[in-house]
Amino acid sequence: MQTKPWNFSAGPSMLPPSVLRQAQRELLDWNGQGASVMELSHRGAPFMELARGIESDLRTLLAIPDNYRVLFTAGGATTIQALLALNFAAPNQRADYVVSGHWSQTALKQARPYVNVQIAAQPAPFDRSPDPAEWTWSRDSAFVHYTANETIHGIAQREVPILPADAPPLIADASSSIASEPMAIERLGAIYAGAQKNLGPVGISVLIVRNDLLEREGQPRADIFRYALQAERDSMLNTPPTFNWYLLGLTVRWMLEQGGTRAFRERNERKAHTLYEVIDGSDGFYRNNVQPDSRSIMNVPFFLPSADLDALFVQESQRLGFIGLKGHKAIGGIRASIYNAMPQEGVDALAELMTDFKRRHG
Amino acid sequence: MQTKPWNFSAGPSMLPPSVLRQAQRELLDWNGQGASVMELSHRGAPFMELARGIESDLRTLLAIPDNYRVLFTAGGATTIQALLALNFAAPNQRADYVVSGHWSQTALKQARPYVNVQIAAQPAPFDRSPDPAEWTWSRDSAFVHYTANETIHGIAQREVPILPADAPPLIADASSSIASEPMAIERLGAIYAGAQKNLGPVGISVLIVRNDLLEREGQPRADIFRYALQAERDSMLNTPPTFNWYLLGLTVRWMLEQGGTRAFRERNERKAHTLYEVIDGSDGFYRNNVQPDSRSIMNVPFFLPSADLDALFVQESQRLGFIGLKGHKAIGGIRASIYNAMPQEGVDALAELMTDFKRRHG
Repeated sequence: MQTKPWNFSAGPSMLPPSVLRQAQRELLDWNGQGASVMELSHRGAPFMELARGIESDLRTLLAIPDNYRVLFTAGGATTIQALLALNFAAPNQRADYVVSGHWSQTALKQARPYVNVQIAAQPAPFDRSPDPAEWTWSRDSAFVHYTANETIHGIAQREVPILPADAPPLIADASSSIASEPMAIERLGAIYAGAQKNLGPVGISVLIVRNDLLEREGQPRADIFRYALQAERDSMLNTPPTFNWYLLGLTVRWMLEQGGTRAFRERNERKAHTLYEVIDGSDGFYRNNVQPDSRSIMNVPFFLPSADLDALFVQESQRLGFIGLKGHKAIGGIRASIYNAMPQEGVDALAELMTDFKRRHG
Repeated sequence: MQTKPWNFSAGPSMLPPSVLRQAQRELLDWNGQGASVMELSHRGAPFMELARGIESDLRTLLAIPDNYRVLFTAGGATTIQALLALNFAAPNQRADYVVSGHWSQTALKQARPYVNVQIAAQPAPFDRSPDPAEWTWSRDSAFVHYTANETIHGIAQREVPILPADAPPLIADASSSIASEPMAIERLGAIYAGAQKNLGPVGISVLIVRNDLLEREGQPRADIFRYALQAERDSMLNTPPTFNWYLLGLTVRWMLEQGGTRAFRERNERKAHTLYEVIDGSDGFYRNNVQPDSRSIMNVPFFLPSADLDALFVQESQRLGFIGLKGHKAIGGIRASIYNAMPQEGVDALAELMTDFKRRHG
């Protein structure tokens, strides 16, 4: 039963319909307070209790070890990318960046004013996640940074790498893959994600950071940029985006009820397989340029034989009620983002369109 | 007709009920898109058009001159306070801060790592907004900063000061007074506000800045911290908090429909007068320590004869369904925040409680 158009947007993206319905029901009167959750003080008991519950649920969902803090921060991952350097590196200390696509480049760019950026690995063209055994880094680096899932290029490093014991802490941008499958957080110094893909709403991000990193001196900066202080104040150093936080909580709770990250791995692999199968079985009509073992199970980009056909495919999809299939302007083509909230049914509908479109235009 | 408890929270605070009802109606299907506004791409035509309309409405509401840009930024005013220094001052350049209460101190603290902070004026105790004629500043300063309304202390500088022609640009934190009454923006270099008081939702802020300030070199910083770049990209350098932006837009539209800032000045003065009249007529039972011409029309703090009575008053108010009357922990006592969304009826209900409470405990 298709209750609404299938939304393949890359982020902001589809939310679970039950989450939106609950938010709708509670919008004017949350938790018996006689007011919207967004009208209440973040320092009042009801919201504080909500926030504690959300952290607890997120710890369960992601199996976050006890020696990590969880920060909920306003805005997106790009801000975190700048603050990583300010908080966890000394001025101009070396930091190593694995560059596997557009978002790795963004991360590196935000850090460049603050650290001595070195490239740990960078395939050309972007068609795979480079083998961690081939990454270069220095023991003196502040950290090694990689992008777990390249949202635009559809390239994933699904397994958290195990670096040698003398390696600096590993930091993962998991904006578009967090909670899509189990992840070995204990191998990481920090992991962060904008929430607007798997964690629900736009306007809030999550940073999970090992305690010892929070003890680093970092660089001169305003208090509002100090993660240790934010941790001390339970992410309420200033007024946090409470409504976004609440929606994130509803989404996390939904994922737990759906069976957690193991259940989502199974579903996501099946959804991705459905699309890659159509692509690989299309005799080259649909092309995906990513090496098979680096293919993302969250974002499936593909190209038709010409830019005209790409455009026609997008047009047809929109007429049929599909949303968000146009590829990112950086690489063009088509992109289907199939985060946790997207059911198999939506993916099947897209696969059907692809098969039909090829029959008519192939 | 009291449809819900009266919410005097300082921020996050009460939203206009009609705004929340519209958001509720549209939460699963906005603008005929078949999806929530928070599920759609910020770069898609529907959201871009929404954003343009919101800026246009805000320009009308606040009478923003053409030579100013309007930025919508994720997070709160505290982040802006750090970024003002990074964007508009050279490293360690002097900047002059008028300190009229808690939030001026916060603004100054965020800037201190980046600029040579000087105090332009600082009354002790905090009982008035210092006379602009007595502010000290240097022609070589990057800017002069003041807080138009001190949310905790209930102290306002309601008229935008006219500084001598050789003064540096004046920057106003108007987080808790923006849109409460007409404001001469053309006298300012920049004005900013967290939205969670008069502009509606938490999680987004507005920065209105004169074009020439955006041309300043500022200090080394990540792209994500560059206001000129954010202006160039229409506040979409990265994924913005779209749902918060949408709610802000609904609130701005509501204020226009209600008659704009002139209408709100009249309402807000009447609401504030109602409360100050009870305070001043209470033979000292209720005390407000602010000098009359610096009294805020947005936040009315007051004290009872003892901390025990303060606590009892808060308790009683909560039992009767009032929300958010407990004063900020920095100064204690009681605080009634009466932003634009609060109707006279709610203030009358509070005045009645105050009169009744005094009769029983005075």
